[in-house]
Amino acid sequence: MNSLAQLITPACLLDLNKFRRNCQRMQAVADSEQLTLRPHVKTLKSLQAAEYYAPASGPITVSTLAEAATFASAGYTDILYAVGLSPNKFGQLAAIQRLARDFTVIADSLAAVNALADYAGELELPLSVMLEVDVDDHRAGLLPQSDELIICARALSAAPNIHFRGIMTHAGASYDCDTKASQQAMGQQECERIANAAANLLAAGIPCELVSAGSTPTALAGIKHTGINELRAGVYATFDCVMAGLGVCETDDIALSVLTSVIGHQVDKNWVIVDAGWMALSRDQGTALQQQDCGYGLVCDEHGKLLDGWYVSATNQEHGIISHRDNLTPPESVFGYGRLLRILPIHACATAAQYSKYHVIGDDGNISAIWSRVNGW
Amino acid sequence: MNSLAQLITPACLLDLNKFRRNCQRMQAVADSEQLTLRPHVKTLKSLQAAEYYAPASGPITVSTLAEAATFASAGYTDILYAVGLSPNKFGQLAAIQRLARDFTVIADSLAAVNALADYAGELELPLSVMLEVDVDDHRAGLLPQSDELIICARALSAAPNIHFRGIMTHAGASYDCDTKASQQAMGQQECERIANAAANLLAAGIPCELVSAGSTPTALAGIKHTGINELRAGVYATFDCVMAGLGVCETDDIALSVLTSVIGHQVDKNWVIVDAGWMALSRDQGTALQQQDCGYGLVCDEHGKLLDGWYVSATNQEHGIISHRDNLTPPESVFGYGRLLRILPIHACATAAQYSKYHVIGDDGNISAIWSRVNGW
Repeated sequence: MNSLAQLITPACLLDLNKFRRNCQRMQAVADSEQLTLRPHVKTLKSLQAAEYYAPASGPITVSTLAEAATFASAGYTDILYAVGLSPNKFGQLAAIQRLARDFTVIADSLAAVNALADYAGELELPLSVMLEVDVDDHRAGLLPQSDELIICARALSAAPNIHFRGIMTHAGASYDCDTKASQQAMGQQECERIANAAANLLAAGIPCELVSAGSTPTALAGIKHTGINELRAGVYATFDCVMAGLGVCETDDIALSVLTSVIGHQVDKNWVIVDAGWMALSRDQGTALQQQDCGYGLVCDEHGKLLDGWYVSATNQEHGIISHRDNLTPPESVFGYGRLLRILPIHACATAAQYSKYHVIGDDGNISAIWSRVNGW
Repeated sequence: MNSLAQLITPACLLDLNKFRRNCQRMQAVADSEQLTLRPHVKTLKSLQAAEYYAPASGPITVSTLAEAATFASAGYTDILYAVGLSPNKFGQLAAIQRLARDFTVIADSLAAVNALADYAGELELPLSVMLEVDVDDHRAGLLPQSDELIICARALSAAPNIHFRGIMTHAGASYDCDTKASQQAMGQQECERIANAAANLLAAGIPCELVSAGSTPTALAGIKHTGINELRAGVYATFDCVMAGLGVCETDDIALSVLTSVIGHQVDKNWVIVDAGWMALSRDQGTALQQQDCGYGLVCDEHGKLLDGWYVSATNQEHGIISHRDNLTPPESVFGYGRLLRILPIHACATAAQYSKYHVIGDDGNISAIWSRVNGW
């Protein structure tokens, strides 16, 4: 089976050429600045996909211990779990450490640091820990200028079986920066604030081996990332409508799509009903506050050509409703019963999460491979 | 392992007592009206859960052919696949039919009817088909008074290897009815319009064996469901914040929750950071337009006691941010690092979809069973 027409819809497609081009774009940024790129594999969570942008010879970022375990088993040795760790996950650390020498966890409070320090005594191998720094008031992390940052770093450095590896941040607020100028300003802020945190630690006698920062918009903002030595980003591998809406990529760069079939119409309303609902697309509406609301996804024909003005305007569990911004009548030649369409995802991480595998589309428009995905925790 | 403290978070919990009480409530409505209840198993997609509310001896509704195949393999014989069928799924029908004698698909256009009629010739067994009727301008279906309804029914009745089984509808618009009166009116409309469709077909010489309607709000609206002989609903088994917001249930009836751990804080902002982000909760924000916006879920302590005013105000992929409506400071005794909490889902179907299994909580508050779930298509 290698033609799209033989697939059961909905199915998740990955355009290999666009995916590779996106991966090369980010690698070129890191290379030009002599920064280590530590790709976040959370979007695709696929060992086969990672061969193209996050090979086992290099460092990666993961969002779950399930990813960490899978990638560690496949030979990855430098894995950063970039989510604060709850104590009920401590029992999983030893097995991952045995496979991945530089497996690293993060903390952003003295409570978490103390819990890790207590537990580290039970581990055979030293536990690598980084501190998370808040550079954008967006989510987690210690403030760069805070005493608690120094107290935590000191506690980690002093703990018998812990290796304090440095500091990391993620300027998630960049997803709300809808101009190149604001993305550049956020990128500068991200670098300056984490560099300040590193300087404060150094002044307190605690050097940072790693000073790690990044998000797709700030990494690709075209600035010089001064004061960090590691760049992290993830969604750039596929991009999505949110990124296109921010101008970080073109719609044509979006490498992920959902193949769907037309299952019906509401003629009076100019609606096309497809078999991709929120189960296939996710409930993410990340473009709702952008200049152009793409609903639950932009519509392409089966070959991936964007159909201007057509978008998924509503979803139920297994139904999507496609309509046109100017309420045009859907032409039968494109939207007839049984026709295949592709939907470009609003948020690739959320759409990809609804699948256990990807159908990879090669040069000839046929399926060249099926790649698996690690779900769960 | 049977204590919650031994679980890896996030995890999806099902309160057995609440679940059973919810199931009994809907069954009592159907029984009192002498209607067949055809539960929709799409919320939990679990054979073990279905034993409590949708046993193999009775009819069920499914949302995917993966569910249909799983339930057919487990002995279910009367399975309604309540989503319009695309031609690329026709090849899956024969295997399900062989196991499930009364497996039934739906159509809502002459194009789909003709495609089914053509394909039915290749099947060993007659294919049961129902027509979908639109009673609320909400999604799919033929209009009750339309000529096309009669044309489609006539074509199905005349097709050699097709068994025309009747008509079905789902008043999805009831999810926007936020008063008991409007839910009752929608329930009346749902029944009247599909009964009119059945009358029009009968006048054209085409009787309907099944006249099937329902949604959780209209089924529980406390009206007499006149003119139908089958009631369909699904989310009542667990309920969720959307249903509680409509007054269809109490918050205390919600049987599904996500167990999460506190992984950090932003003290200045009165934020609690937990390890349940949108990957664990889904991106559904179905209460955003209700009187009370519950964000991504309401917060309970680890025993399931609602913590008044606390809700998940923001999510990223693996991070949830809990805050209080009046910006109260989170007490350490409840929200300290490592503490367990339970999040009540906004939309149970979407939250449950993020998991491959449920941890069932019995009378003693411990885990009494693990139930599996059928994902994918």
